[in-house]
Amino acid sequence: MRVIFNEELKQVADDLDRMAQDVRKAIKGAGDALLNQDVEAAQTVIDGDIEIDALESSVLDQCVKLLAKQNPVATDLRVVVSTMRLASTFERMGDLARHVAEAARRTYPAAAIPESAQPVFADMVAFLDNTADQLVAMLTDRDAKTAEAIILADDKLDELHHRTFDLALSDEITRQQTVDIVLLGRFLERLGDHAVSAARRVVYIVSGFDPTKEPTRDEGTDID
Amino acid sequence: MRVIFNEELKQVADDLDRMAQDVRKAIKGAGDALLNQDVEAAQTVIDGDIEIDALESSVLDQCVKLLAKQNPVATDLRVVVSTMRLASTFERMGDLARHVAEAARRTYPAAAIPESAQPVFADMVAFLDNTADQLVAMLTDRDAKTAEAIILADDKLDELHHRTFDLALSDEITRQQTVDIVLLGRFLERLGDHAVSAARRVVYIVSGFDPTKEPTRDEGTDID
Repeated sequence: MRVIFNEELKQVADDLDRMAQDVRKAIKGAGDALLNQDVEAAQTVIDGDIEIDALESSVLDQCVKLLAKQNPVATDLRVVVSTMRLASTFERMGDLARHVAEAARRTYPAAAIPESAQPVFADMVAFLDNTADQLVAMLTDRDAKTAEAIILADDKLDELHHRTFDLALSDEITRQQTVDIVLLGRFLERLGDHAVSAARRVVYIVSGFDPTKEPTRDEGTDID
Repeated sequence: MRVIFNEELKQVADDLDRMAQDVRKAIKGAGDALLNQDVEAAQTVIDGDIEIDALESSVLDQCVKLLAKQNPVATDLRVVVSTMRLASTFERMGDLARHVAEAARRTYPAAAIPESAQPVFADMVAFLDNTADQLVAMLTDRDAKTAEAIILADDKLDELHHRTFDLALSDEITRQQTVDIVLLGRFLERLGDHAVSAARRVVYIVSGFDPTKEPTRDEGTDID
């Protein structure tokens, strides 16, 4: 039983790693689409989201089968349950990257955000590129240290997100640009939130300590 | 074993019902806060979110224990796994209702949205009030028909959401109002998306058919 469990879990873990890699690709592609009007990158992200969705389904199916057939307990059970939640988090990150890519494609060949907002969005994209690298590393190595780094760094993204609101209020840009700054800022901030939530799942898998139960009221305030 | 399983499952189901009721209260309170500048309602929603978060934790813990101790299979397993996902969906709905309430509190005693946008937002709030009633009914009765009604109705909310973008582009309102319309529209639309996702879980519990696997690319487009 044990050997079969480990083999099957390995298969699920491989799919989850692939999801993380796909999400990383999607985040980088969405960033390129947004900052460099790379419409091909945008299309690749949009098309690629189907694979992420399919991987989520596959991971969830495999986990349910594992639960039914192997009745894992203790750490094994924690791994399976967390894997299901990680898959759903990655699926949602794929959606958000796709939303960013869709915004970029919609305004092409013009940029989706005005020049005044480019530096802050470039910082957000760079932040998320780095987070995406950390996500993949964290998952490959089941590394709680990297996970903790993701959790701790998120304030920086929130701070950048707050700055987008000031930019959105400028009278120098069009109303449509205000709308796009708000939406794109929100999508990027949510990508960061989900990365934090994924990192917390990994901390939970590795240590058994569930950091989602700490008294945090929010992951990234939205409007204040 | 069977009797214990059913008893423990009943306890989890009660907690999940309570979550649905709390979410309904939060949605109604957020609507009042938004449309009637009811700052007390806003505060109640904001404070009440802690209970929803605690219920989610409790439901997840109970489900993990059930999985470990009872090794449910087939329909029972589907119920437990779906219950976990429903709890997370409800938790997120509580967050979104809280975000709406926070926006209303922030602009109090002024309205968070300009008069021109009130009718559309009133329609969205009325739609979500009704959805919240359906959610509670669907869960209490494990009723796939109500769940399907929720899924089918969501287009209406998307249509209302699209109309908020036109309102947001008006030059007659302040930039801050543009920002708030976009954010609040997004929060309400996401509340609807999560209701659909909850409804799909219930269809899955009742029928074994997983409607999330239908080829739907999105739940509510965001910006186009």
